[in-house]
Parts: sequence; C-alpha cells; structure tokens
Amino acid sequence: MSDALFTSMVGAAEVEAHLSDRAFVAAMLEVEAVLADESARVGLIPPEAAEAIAVRCEVEGFDIASIGRRGAAHASVVVPLVADLRAAVPEPFRQYVHAGTTSQDILDTALCLVAKRALAPILADLEATGEALAALAQRHIGTAQIGRTLLQQAEPTTFGLVCAGWLVELDDALAGLRRVRDERLAVQLGGPVGTQTQLHGQPVMANLARRLDLAEPELPWHTGRQRIGELAASIGLAAGALGTIARDVTLLAQTELAEVTEGEPGGSSSMPHKRNPARSVLVLACCQQVPGLVAGVLAGMTQELQRAAGAWQAEAPAIVRLLRLLGAAATQTRTLVGGLRVDVSRMAGNLDAYGWVPDDELFSSAEALVGRVLRRRAAAR
Amino acid sequence: MSDALFTSMVGAAEVEAHLSDRAFVAAMLEVEAVLADESARVGLIPPEAAEAIAVRCEVEGFDIASIGRRGAAHASVVVPLVADLRAAVPEPFRQYVHAGTTSQDILDTALCLVAKRALAPILADLEATGEALAALAQRHIGTAQIGRTLLQQAEPTTFGLVCAGWLVELDDALAGLRRVRDERLAVQLGGPVGTQTQLHGQPVMANLARRLDLAEPELPWHTGRQRIGELAASIGLAAGALGTIARDVTLLAQTELAEVTEGEPGGSSSMPHKRNPARSVLVLACCQQVPGLVAGVLAGMTQELQRAAGAWQAEAPAIVRLLRLLGAAATQTRTLVGGLRVDVSRMAGNLDAYGWVPDDELFSSAEALVGRVLRRRAAAR
Amino acid sequence: MSDALFTSMVGAAEVEAHLSDRAFVAAMLEVEAVLADESARVGLIPPEAAEAIAVRCEVEGFDIASIGRRGAAHASVVVPLVADLRAAVPEPFRQYVHAGTTSQDILDTALCLVAKRALAPILADLEATGEALAALAQRHIGTAQIGRTLLQQAEPTTFGLVCAGWLVELDDALAGLRRVRDERLAVQLGGPVGTQTQLHGQPVMANLARRLDLAEPELPWHTGRQRIGELAASIGLAAGALGTIARDVTLLAQTELAEVTEGEPGGSSSMPHKRNPARSVLVLACCQQVPGLVAGVLAGMTQELQRAAGAWQAEAPAIVRLLRLLGAAATQTRTLVGGLRVDVSRMAGNLDAYGWVPDDELFSSAEALVGRVLRRRAAAR
Amino acid sequence: MSDALFTSMVGAAEVEAHLSDRAFVAAMLEVEAVLADESARVGLIPPEAAEAIAVRCEVEGFDIASIGRRGAAHASVVVPLVADLRAAVPEPFRQYVHAGTTSQDILDTALCLVAKRALAPILADLEATGEALAALAQRHIGTAQIGRTLLQQAEPTTFGLVCAGWLVELDDALAGLRRVRDERLAVQLGGPVGTQTQLHGQPVMANLARRLDLAEPELPWHTGRQRIGELAASIGLAAGALGTIARDVTLLAQTELAEVTEGEPGGSSSMPHKRNPARSVLVLACCQQVPGLVAGVLAGMTQELQRAAGAWQAEAPAIVRLLRLLGAAATQTRTLVGGLRVDVSRMAGNLDAYGWVPDDELFSSAEALVGRVLRRRAAAR
Repeated sequence: MSDALFTSMVGAAEVEAHLSDRAFVAAMLEVEAVLADESARVGLIPPEAAEAIAVRCEVEGFDIASIGRRGAAHASVVVPLVADLRAAVPEPFRQYVHAGTTSQDILDTALCLVAKRALAPILADLEATGEALAALAQRHIGTAQIGRTLLQQAEPTTFGLVCAGWLVELDDALAGLRRVRDERLAVQLGGPVGTQTQLHGQPVMANLARRLDLAEPELPWHTGRQRIGELAASIGLAAGALGTIARDVTLLAQTELAEVTEGEPGGSSSMPHKRNPARSVLVLACCQQVPGLVAGVLAGMTQELQRAAGAWQAEAPAIVRLLRLLGAAATQTRTLVGGLRVDVSRMAGNLDAYGWVPDDELFSSAEALVGRVLRRRAAAR
Repeated sequence: MSDALFTSMVGAAEVEAHLSDRAFVAAMLEVEAVLADESARVGLIPPEAAEAIAVRCEVEGFDIASIGRRGAAHASVVVPLVADLRAAVPEPFRQYVHAGTTSQDILDTALCLVAKRALAPILADLEATGEALAALAQRHIGTAQIGRTLLQQAEPTTFGLVCAGWLVELDDALAGLRRVRDERLAVQLGGPVGTQTQLHGQPVMANLARRLDLAEPELPWHTGRQRIGELAASIGLAAGALGTIARDVTLLAQTELAEVTEGEPGGSSSMPHKRNPARSVLVLACCQQVPGLVAGVLAGMTQELQRAAGAWQAEAPAIVRLLRLLGAAATQTRTLVGGLRVDVSRMAGNLDAYGWVPDDELFSSAEALVGRVLRRRAAAR
Repeated sequence: MSDALFTSMVGAAEVEAHLSDRAFVAAMLEVEAVLADESARVGLIPPEAAEAIAVRCEVEGFDIASIGRRGAAHASVVVPLVADLRAAVPEPFRQYVHAGTTSQDILDTALCLVAKRALAPILADLEATGEALAALAQRHIGTAQIGRTLLQQAEPTTFGLVCAGWLVELDDALAGLRRVRDERLAVQLGGPVGTQTQLHGQPVMANLARRLDLAEPELPWHTGRQRIGELAASIGLAAGALGTIARDVTLLAQTELAEVTEGEPGGSSSMPHKRNPARSVLVLACCQQVPGLVAGVLAGMTQELQRAAGAWQAEAPAIVRLLRLLGAAATQTRTLVGGLRVDVSRMAGNLDAYGWVPDDELFSSAEALVGRVLRRRAAAR
Repeated sequence: MSDALFTSMVGAAEVEAHLSDRAFVAAMLEVEAVLADESARVGLIPPEAAEAIAVRCEVEGFDIASIGRRGAAHASVVVPLVADLRAAVPEPFRQYVHAGTTSQDILDTALCLVAKRALAPILADLEATGEALAALAQRHIGTAQIGRTLLQQAEPTTFGLVCAGWLVELDDALAGLRRVRDERLAVQLGGPVGTQTQLHGQPVMANLARRLDLAEPELPWHTGRQRIGELAASIGLAAGALGTIARDVTLLAQTELAEVTEGEPGGSSSMPHKRNPARSVLVLACCQQVPGLVAGVLAGMTQELQRAAGAWQAEAPAIVRLLRLLGAAATQTRTLVGGLRVDVSRMAGNLDAYGWVPDDELFSSAEALVGRVLRRRAAAR
C-alpha cells in the first residue's frame, strides 16, 4: 500500500504529530525566533527586531506547500522560509531575520528538536512495554515452557525467563535512546562555514541550547554527523529489540504451538477462522524497514568539507522515517505485550509431549535470573 | 526536514499522483471490479453481481483515513476496504464481493498497477534526459577536457565522451526498468493459499492480466518475491546512473574547476554570491536513500510459507518510496541535464594549465566512441 | 567465528578455487598476456614482445603476498604486479608490458573473468537444485498439506505446489544470473581516462572480449558501473530465492510440524536428541549477509569523473564475498533439497487435526499449476 | 581484487592477527579451559578434569581446516571442536569437557574476546590519529582557508578549525568504541536454552567474566543481540568519522585546489605524473563497505526463540569483517593524518583568488573554537 496508508495503518498518532510538515516548519520558525531573541540579549541585534521577528514566527502564517516547492531551486526549504519570514517582518527589521546563521543551523537544530519531541511518546510506549514485560516475567516466573533452538524443541525453560530476556534487551535499547536524546541531540549554530564569526564571541550557541533544551556541542557540527548517526543507530537497535519480541510471538502463536495469542487477533479477508498475530506482523513490518535506512544514514556520514552536497539533505527524511517506524513499532508492541494471552496449559501440554519431568533445578535457576532483572528494575525506580 | 516537505521539495508531481493513498485505494478497487467482471464472464459469479460491485468501486465513496486506521487490527487495509465495499453493495450481491480472492491478491496486483503507472512519467523523464545527453555528446564531440582519476588531473578526454558515458549507463538502466515494467509487474491471483481452487479451472488470472495490462505469472507468487526484488533492484541501478551524473556535475561545477554550471544555480540563505548546484544536490539526496531501501526489500524476500508475517507488509511502503525517490531524481536530472551550461573556454583553460598540446589521436578515438553510441541510439528509434 | 572458518564451514570448494588470491592474480596476468598478444596482432607492439610477456604471465612466478602489501602505497595491486611483470621481462620488451592500458582495465576485466568462472559451479548447483525441485513437485503433485499464512494454519495446498513455487523463483533467479554472465560481464579497455587513444583505432577491445569470452562493451565503463551493480543485484535476487526455501524448511521441520526433515540433520554440542536443520541454517546464514553487501555495491555506483576514489576499490572484495556466499548457499541448498525427507503421513495428520475433508477441486487446481511449470521446463530443455 | 588481496593491500597486520582462524579457535579453546577451571573451583567438575582439559586447549593440537569442514554438518564449528577436544582428553575426564555449556556460549564469548583484542590496536591507531589531528589543529590555528559548501567556495574558515572538526568526531567515535569494549563485550553462559540450570546456582558466569576481562551480563543473551548490534553500530560510526577525513583530503588534494597532499602520494600504472591520494582512497574503500554490513547485523537481530536459525550464524563473519575494515581504515588514516602536507601558501592563494581580506574576527572566533577542543583534550589526559 502507499506510504501514508501504511503509516496510518501502523499508526502512532502522537509521534506523527511531531513529524508532520507543519511541526517541522514550526520547529524551524521556533529556532529563528529563539535565535533572534538570544542574539538580542547579547546585543547582536536590536531587541525590537527580535520581538518583530518572534511575533511572525507562527506557523499559521506560512504556506508550507509553497515553501516546499520553492525549496527545490535552492535544494533547501530554509531559503524560501526565510524569504517569507523576512517579507512578513516590517522593513527596518528585515536585515535581522536569520542574521548570523545559515540554512543548516536552522534545519539541524529543528531536526534535533523534532526528534527529541517525537522520542517522548516513543519512550513512553517503550517504558510501558517494559513494565508489562516485567509483570509478565513475574507472573510466569514459575511457568515452564519448552525452549526451542534452531526452531527445534531443545530443553525446558520458563516463560518468565523468556519475558525477562525480552525485557533486558528493551531496557538496553531504552538506555541508548535516552542517552542520544539527552546528550546528543544538539543545537547547531556555526554560520555559513561553521566559524561562528558572526557571533562576535557571544555565547549564543550555549544560550540557544539551554532555551531549546538541547545539548550544546563543542563545535558546530555541519559535516560532523556522529550525532545523527548515533540517533539512527539507537533506533536501529531499539527496532532489533522490538522485532525480537514480535518474531517470537508469531512463532509461539503458530497453530501447532499455540502457547500465546494476541489479545485481539486479526481477521482475514478470505478466511474467517484465522486468528492472525496482527500486532506482531505490524511490528515486524516496521522493523524490517529500519536496518536499510540506518545503513543509508551511516553511508551518508562522510560529508564534504563545510556542507555536503546531497548526503546532508538526505538525512532528515530518513530520520523522520526511522522515528515514524520506531514510533509505530513501539505503540504496536505496547498493545501486543499488554494484551498477550499466555496459554499455560498448552505450554504444559507441549512439555508433556516432549516428555518433561518437572525439575526444581530449572525453576530455581530461572527464578534467580528473572529475580535479578526485576530487582535491578525495582531499584532503579 | 519532514518527509512530505522533502518530497515536495524534490518534487515529481506526476509520479506523486500515482503514489498517493487515493491512487492506491483506487487501484485496489479497480482490481476488485475487474476481478468481479472477469469472474462473471466465466460464470463464477452472476453478471448482475459484477455490475453491482463495479459501480461501487469508485474511490470517492470510501473513507481512506478510516480504512487505514481500521487496517491495524488485521495488519491489512484490504480487510476494512472489502468490508466497506461489501456494505456498499446491495444485499443479494454482497457474497460475491472479493469472491475467490485474498487480501494479498488485491494488494500485490494494485502495487504492480501503481508501479507501472508511476514508471510512465519516470521513463519519460529518463528518455528525455537520454535525448539531452545525446545532444550534449554530439555538440561536444570535439570539446577537449582534462580527465581526472582519483580526483587528480590525469590525461585529456572530451566532454562529449563524458556525456556518452553517462548516456550508456542511463540507457542500460532504462532497459532494465522497461523489462521489469513489461515482463515482471504481474497480476496476483491465488486465493487464500495460492491454489486457485476457487477459480474452478477458469482462466481468470490470464484474463485479469490482459485487462489490467500486467504480466500473467506462471503461478501465484505470494511468497515468491523475485518480481518485487527485481523492481527494487532496477530502481537501485537507475539511481546509480543518475547519481553518477549529479556527482560529476557537482565536481565539475566546483569553483576551482568551473567547467559546468547548472542552468539555474541555487542561492544560499546566508551567502548571496553562491551559485549552488541545487538540482545535482537534490538528485544526490534522493539517490543516497535508495540502496538501503533496496537492501530492505532484498532482505525481505525470504517470506514464510504461504504468506509472510511482516516482510510482505513492509514491501509496499518501500517500493512506493523507491518510486518516489527515483521519480524525483529523474525529474531533477532532466532539468539538470537540459539546462547544463558548459564552459568550453574554461575547459580549455584547465587543459592549458595542465600543459596539453591538442592531439588528433584523442579526438579521432573519442569521436569514434561517441559516434558508436549515437549511431546505436539512432538505429533504435 | 572467523571469516575463513565460516567460509570453510559453509564450504563451496569449487567456487572458492575461482575466488582465491592466486586465481585473481592469475586472471590479471591472463588479461595482460592476451592484451599483449592482441596488441601485437594489430601491430601496436612487436610480436616478440607479446611472446616475451605472455611467457612471464604465469602466476607461479609472482609473490602474491608482496604484491598485496606493496599495493597499499598506490591503492592498487596492479601497480606492483605490473612492476614485477616488467622486471621479469627481458629489457627490450619492458616498455610493451601493460602498454596502452591502465590499472582499472586489468582489474575490471579480471574481476569479470573471475566472476564468470565462479558462476559456473554456482549455476550448476542451482540447476541441479531446480531438477531436484521439479522431481519433488512431480512426486508430491497429489500430496495435500495445510497451507499457513502469517504462520497460522489457513487452508490446504499441496506440497507439490509448494515445491513448484520454490522452483519458479529459482528459475527466475537463474535466468537473471545467466543474463548477467552472458551479456554483462565484459572486458574493460580504455586506457588512463577511457579514451582508447592508445589503441589507434584498432579493434583490440572487441578482440580481447572474444578471446576472453566476455562481452564487448559499447564504451569503456570505468565509472559506469551498471554491469557491476547488475551482478550484485542478480546475486541478491538469487539469495532471496534460496533463502525462501531454507526458511520454509526450518519452519516445516519444527518439532511441532515435522512435515519435512533434512537428509542428514545436524547434532548439537549439548543436546544429543536434536535433529537440527543444519543445511537450512547455513543457507540462511549466507543469505542473511547478502542484502547489505548489495546495498554497499549500489551505494558505490556514483563513481567520480574518470576513476573513483574509494568506491571502485571497494567493489571487488564485495563482489568476491557475494559470489562466495551465493556459492555456499547454492551448494548447501542443493544438498538440502536433494536430501529432503518429506513425511507424507505427518502432513496428512496435520490436515486431519485441521479437519480437512479431501477435496478434488484442490487437487485438480494445484495439479494444473504444477503441471504448467513442469511442462514449461520440459519444453525448455 | 580478491578478498584476501584487498585485506593484504589495506593492511592492518596487528588487527588481522586477532581475527585469524587460528586466533578464533584459540579463543574458543581458552573459553573452554577457563570455564572448566571455574567450574572446578565451585565444585561442578573435578579439579583433575579441569587440569586435563586446560592442558589440551592449545590451538596447536587442532586441525583447524578439518574443524571448519566438519562444522557444516552441524552448522556449528563448536561441535567438531568439542569432539576433537574430548578425544584429546584422557577417558575419565571426557564427560567434563564442555560440561554445562552450549555451542553458542563458547562462540559468543570467543567472539567478544576476539573483538576486544582486535579493538586494542584499532583504538591505539585512532588515539594516535587524534593526537596528530590535535597537533595539526594547533599548528594551523591561524591558517586561513576558504570554506566550501556544496563544493562551492563559500566563506573563509581556518584549517585548524577543519582539523578540530575532524577531531571532535573522532573523539566521539572513540568514546563509543571504548564504551562497547568496556561495558558491552560480555561473556555468554547459559547452557542449551539459557537457563543456567547446569550451574546449580554457582556464580560461574561472573567468575568467567572476571577471568576473561569481559563484562558480566545480567542474563544469558543468546537471542538478545543488543551487544552485537552496538558493536557493529559503533564500528559504523567510527567509519563515518574516518571516511569524512579521507573524503575531505581527496577533495582538498584535487589538482585544482592542491591545499593538502598525502605524505607519500601513490603512483599510477599508466600515468607517472600522478600523485594519488592513495591512503585516503584506501580509507574510503574500507568505509564504503561498512554501512551495508552494519545493516546486515541489525537486520539479523530479530533472532528466534532460544537460538536463531541463520541470523546468529551470520553475525561472526560480519563482525570480523567490520573489525578488519575498521582496523585497516584506522591504520591508513593514522598514516594519512601523520604524513599530511599542508600547503599554506596555496591556501592563501585560493583565498586571494576569492578576494579575501584578512579578518581578525574570523581568527579570534575560530581560535576560540579550536582552543575549546584542545583544552578539553588536555584536561582529559
């Protein structure tokens, strides 16, 4: 199906709101406004100019479609955006619009702002998923289940330990996303070639970072893309954690295993008896698209001299798409884990078929492992 | 910037029209309508049912956003689409809606239809680019230029030969896209698990293919994804051909080389003197995103049993994005090549600085090579 | 495990022989020798020089490790190779060694030679796999099996149709590999910047192509990499076909389904009762690595001006690795398919559990589909 | 060229020594020996058995090629390795060989050991490169250079700031690699399905971690692959940092810019006047291959249930290749940066051509930025 229809189907409405055109243009205008205000505070532009600019930086006043179209001629939507902003500001102040900055300063800062905001609902979904997994691990700390290696029955484990395994991965992925959000999403402010000459030694970059709640970088990072690469990689790692849960659910939900079922299994357009693991399928469909996008971002990191010709411009749509896919996968996984039905008697039946004799050693060992994870989490609250 | 803003900036309006939600839903409805009609022709459903269905298969009657949202519960937008279509058809005929088919039949066929239609303007742009390159090759068949290997001046070549080199690659890529369009984009019709049991031996798949102007496959191909992989690969190869042109233009347009300039160079938000190779940058920004997406499609080819859990559902958005990126790259390359300004005196100046003495051997050899390409193209008309 | 240990485990000895250092250096020397001979035939160098060169182009006379190490200083192993060859040739003829050519001419031609030779055993394995699949499809044309969509039991199909589905994909992939081998693997001969000035109008490129049994390109293709991209893509598509078979076998071989078993299932270092689908696992382990490598090759297609700085040099190791992985996957799939044990009674048992009543419509429809594939193959012999 | 020839050319001999078959088998044997010893300490096996095992765990006693070949039947080289080790140990102790563990415990731990050891010379090369960049940044803190955006001359910067920009990225990448090395490369010890039942509550995993100087995981992580994904991602990010330096050097070294030259430029097989940026080309050739491999590792993270069928087995060769490529890129970058010749007068000449009037604001601003980086580094010593 088409891209938007897919997005709508996998649906993460709250994340989407942060990733829209409108949100993106609003973020760019917010950067221009705060930059003008901070420039005025240190005397780089008149306070009246900053006020006149800020008041015009409302997204409602801009024709977003037109900005997109006119951006083509410059390979940058900031050029028409600034032109429209300048035109909206009264004459004596026009020269102060976008003063001392460059397209990439605005766009990179806006991208980090948008990413930080989009990560909020994503992290909330992942945290709730973690809570649900912890509850499942606790509830099934003594539920034996046959373990399967290379998709063959191997030896018994417990479903609590399976959930704890999913949980540890999720927690690691969460830690990575939080680190990127708090330490790596940063303001960009260097001027045309990154020298900050136009700031006349004023700490505008630091102040901008504080105002926008983004990290302050050591240097402008126009062609130094570790931050963007880390964001992409942390999304890739989180998708790996979510995909593993969904993959396992589709396997355990197979008709012949039937050890788990989704809370609201999906129907089929042609087979009314089907109980499809629809949420898991959506999670896998999202995660499947992630690694290639991460590779694209990593491949684009070798950016030329003071501004890249192509590789930089390709980043933002890839990052937006990665956030969208992770957001959808996180929402669907939350629903999936929250609603998961565990068929304990079927697990016991499959163990019987395997010929298992209950085994205290297994329970005590698996309980110790699960307990370790749950205690660490409880302590971290 | 956001995804849609990027799309709007790189702009390929004609291609976009074929890739919209609306176009996709319309294509699915078209498949349902033609399938009903062909089923009626061979007696599988009553002719009145087919008529009643066809008349309701107008996209205007459907709430696309609702279809997207409701698709989540089934991991398929076809389920709510068919439900809405069924509800719209008068009672006695509802049982014949979507008869003998399955979600994937509709979606795969619609994807191929959409891809075929989106390829039309793409191929037109590529063909026009080829014509423009042929004209450049002819015009500059005797324009000497220093060749550069590993970005170091090496030995002289001609700009005509450079253009012919771009052209041969483009022609190869075009041949690949045409082959996929004509031979590989196919109807899908297998029913729930691909057995065609529901067709009672009737040649509905062949007739559907003829009606929709798509290839007829040997078998239903629900989890056999060579066709989709080939489509992705052919787009990847075409992006390689376009990216090479754009990469070379950015290099030749460098201030210090200045051998070519774009027809309408872009401006900068902070540096009025800049003459940015904006079209080339857009082409590179599109092409940069392609290989990772192709990898995602190839990685998703190992689909499970009779319908994949995740890998199939991930395909359509990736294919749509690939078509969009290629469409934008093709449009921008057409503009780029059509408007390219070649500074012959600067080429001569750079050769002088290198110390070149004009050389008949070079001209005769390069002319022979260019002539070979142009004659082959002329003969192929 | 380490790279070489992995290669040795997945093992495709015949393919490996064509991909060794020794084979690669031998191919480069073969190109130098034949080029000298063809240059002599058209009078570009003295016949005695060609003879003196050819006699020294035996790989035994070269220190391959030294050539590798010394290549670093030039980012090209051809520079030290040519130096050693020149040193080995008697003085009056040294000037004719490598005359009129450039490193990339030798390396690209050698890469195509090596690829063509490595494809021979790969195609043989794939063809034998196709024969084995055709036999399975015929043998099980009437073996009913439950079909599974999204890993849930759906409706019945036949195992013959499953095999025919695998076969059609394999045949498509084979056709793609054959096309690349016969039409796209080409000689390269352009001289330093691709102008062929040094050939003085002589048809050396055509003659070289004929002698080496490679295609003759329209132009030198130093930075036009469609051919290499197509080779990578065709390997990616073939890996998709093989991975699908192996994925399905691991699923059908699950303890709980047990419908197929590998001929010689693998053991475990800790669980003696395991019957692991070891061949399938090896095939999947190979195929898993392919899409990323294809993306790397596609991303490297935008090569700069007359010779790329990095992207070209990255190609050969990627292509060699792709051939190795496909070779191993093809060999293992041949063993897998050739030895596959089909448990017909288990298939029947799983259908009983589903509640199936044998259905003539299913058999006649599935038989017609399988028959179509087998007749097409029989006709193509 | 062939894979091994490429490896030999890009050459990182010290890294290679840690990545060989021999090193890998030695690491697996080291794990078996230390595991036996730690198992004996806690009373799980007799001390005499541990001694008898340890003494046989010398790689010299094993036929590595045979282990590779025999691994195919089990899709695991650990099975034949353990068989050979068991055969080498005197009879009463054979049952204690590999006791309480599983193939994946040995292989994952060995992979982490090998990775940790291979990272040592890589980090040393990167640290030395950082020192050299810091020295360049200091030396050229006042060297003005024209900045270039979208490959067009834009506004002046300083070469010191350019070097500081490279350095900050490298430091970030280094921090990521160190974090993975110190916190994420871990032992694996779970037994067949990850329950540690066989350890009878003994802290063998913790002790093993201490002995092998690897991290202790919270749980066995057989199908939880965040650690491996993070290793791959950190290599991908480091390759981005190195590739950017090399890309910029190739651009600045262009004949027409000529602002930097490699210390020992490479020659050409056909053009004696060429001064090729050979080291940069090698770095780019290595880095070009990295993103696709990272994507492959990320795509393989969704591993099935208690042991993956294919995705796990594909990891080790990909990780080894990533380490090899990063090792080679690091070594070549160290040489490149250490030997870089900066043509200050040419930089001045290019600024003159641009029409620059020296500008104190630029120098004071750029110096402040560079100083900030150098002070942070000095403070961190």
